[in-house]
Amino acid sequence: MEKLITLVHDSVVITPEGRQERQEVLAIETPYTVLLNEVEIGTSMVLETGLEEFGAGFLFGQGYIQSSSEVIEVFVCPEGRVSVYADVEDNLEPKDSIITSGCGGTGKISKEMLEGAFDALPQYSISFKEVHDFILESLHFSKLGTETHCVHGCGFWAEGRLQAFYEDVGRHNAVDKIIGAILLGKIPVLGAIYTTGRLTSDMVLKCARLGIPVIISRTSASSLGLAIAKKAGVTIIVYARPSRLNVFHAPERIIMD
Amino acid sequence: MEKLITLVHDSVVITPEGRQERQEVLAIETPYTVLLNEVEIGTSMVLETGLEEFGAGFLFGQGYIQSSSEVIEVFVCPEGRVSVYADVEDNLEPKDSIITSGCGGTGKISKEMLEGAFDALPQYSISFKEVHDFILESLHFSKLGTETHCVHGCGFWAEGRLQAFYEDVGRHNAVDKIIGAILLGKIPVLGAIYTTGRLTSDMVLKCARLGIPVIISRTSASSLGLAIAKKAGVTIIVYARPSRLNVFHAPERIIMD
Repeated sequence: MEKLITLVHDSVVITPEGRQERQEVLAIETPYTVLLNEVEIGTSMVLETGLEEFGAGFLFGQGYIQSSSEVIEVFVCPEGRVSVYADVEDNLEPKDSIITSGCGGTGKISKEMLEGAFDALPQYSISFKEVHDFILESLHFSKLGTETHCVHGCGFWAEGRLQAFYEDVGRHNAVDKIIGAILLGKIPVLGAIYTTGRLTSDMVLKCARLGIPVIISRTSASSLGLAIAKKAGVTIIVYARPSRLNVFHAPERIIMD
Repeated sequence: MEKLITLVHDSVVITPEGRQERQEVLAIETPYTVLLNEVEIGTSMVLETGLEEFGAGFLFGQGYIQSSSEVIEVFVCPEGRVSVYADVEDNLEPKDSIITSGCGGTGKISKEMLEGAFDALPQYSISFKEVHDFILESLHFSKLGTETHCVHGCGFWAEGRLQAFYEDVGRHNAVDKIIGAILLGKIPVLGAIYTTGRLTSDMVLKCARLGIPVIISRTSASSLGLAIAKKAGVTIIVYARPSRLNVFHAPERIIMD
């Protein structure tokens, strides 16, 4: 069933010339609780799209799931619940965590994850032309962003084309939906991720943990976001526009045609 | 001691014309743990400014502190700790909470707070000219935002002038610093708050709980942010520019000169 993700609201625009009525489109945020093997892990405000992906990606971001092979099944249940079944240890004790600066649902990363080592990334390069097309197509699919200015978008590029694009009221949730799509085998893992949000530590960390070699942002990165990218060997592109990329780390993955 | 809040990073800009070296300024995010009466409540990534205010505001946002009169003293300690002493119940059990869509440190609101009633707001109005000046001055103080594009700003206007302005890597942290400044008696409570961030539920909720009658955002609001504003009777202004205000609720508080 298609869920309602926007509503129209009557507002009043005030300028020195006077008042004028106007209609604005608002993104609907809805609380969803994610369960892992029937244990409640957390409740997050989300936009009701890609909920299965969100459930899996959220659990990865919080460190409860480590890889695609652990995920068994995901159900989106009534009353705002996403139930994930996964082949993981039963020890679901709360972790020693840091609430992140992130604009988004996940909001926490464990200190353990922040200090951990990363697996070596596979060989990967992407052409300047591909990044150009990726950004253009992502902008094309940012419909709700254009309408509401209250959501973030996140896209994934692999095998020469845009594989998926999600939007959400949370910068993190949008990334979690892409990560979930990868974990659920809907899209490949070897490619580039594009986000309209800032690359703070938590954002870079989860992409790096999953092994995504290129992270692109429409806006900037924080000091710790960059530090994690350096440690993991991930390419970080900021202030990305179709024909202008500002590369903060590992520019060798971007090849000119 | 003045803390270092930015660093300069060498990046490479790639365009169809070639590669060029460039220096960018990055915001430094640092983990800080907030303690209430010597009990650790949470750790958040912050920009190291207004840390006392952040500590008090963070605890208010999470529902551990309800009013200014409860706060006894705040210490910023070495090794990333803000220690708040307050006259509150000893019951610091984790609350049944929702991780929010918010771009920011707090990241959680309790279900109880979301469903609670609000005290009636005091009489308050603000002139169009004052809002104009407030936005202009806030933009003037958004120095780090302009430099790094990786922080959010939050200002407070009362008694005809800008009372405070804070920036942070988290949209929420910046608001928490303003809320903390009010709780610590550094600035008055009766006025208007301006944020560069989106007004999702959690953002509106904490401002409404504190009794701030006018909330202004450079960007938009979500459905639930608006719903809370309506319930609390708070004026919500979105897409705010010095000479153009889009009022989503309670425009009667904005008076023309």
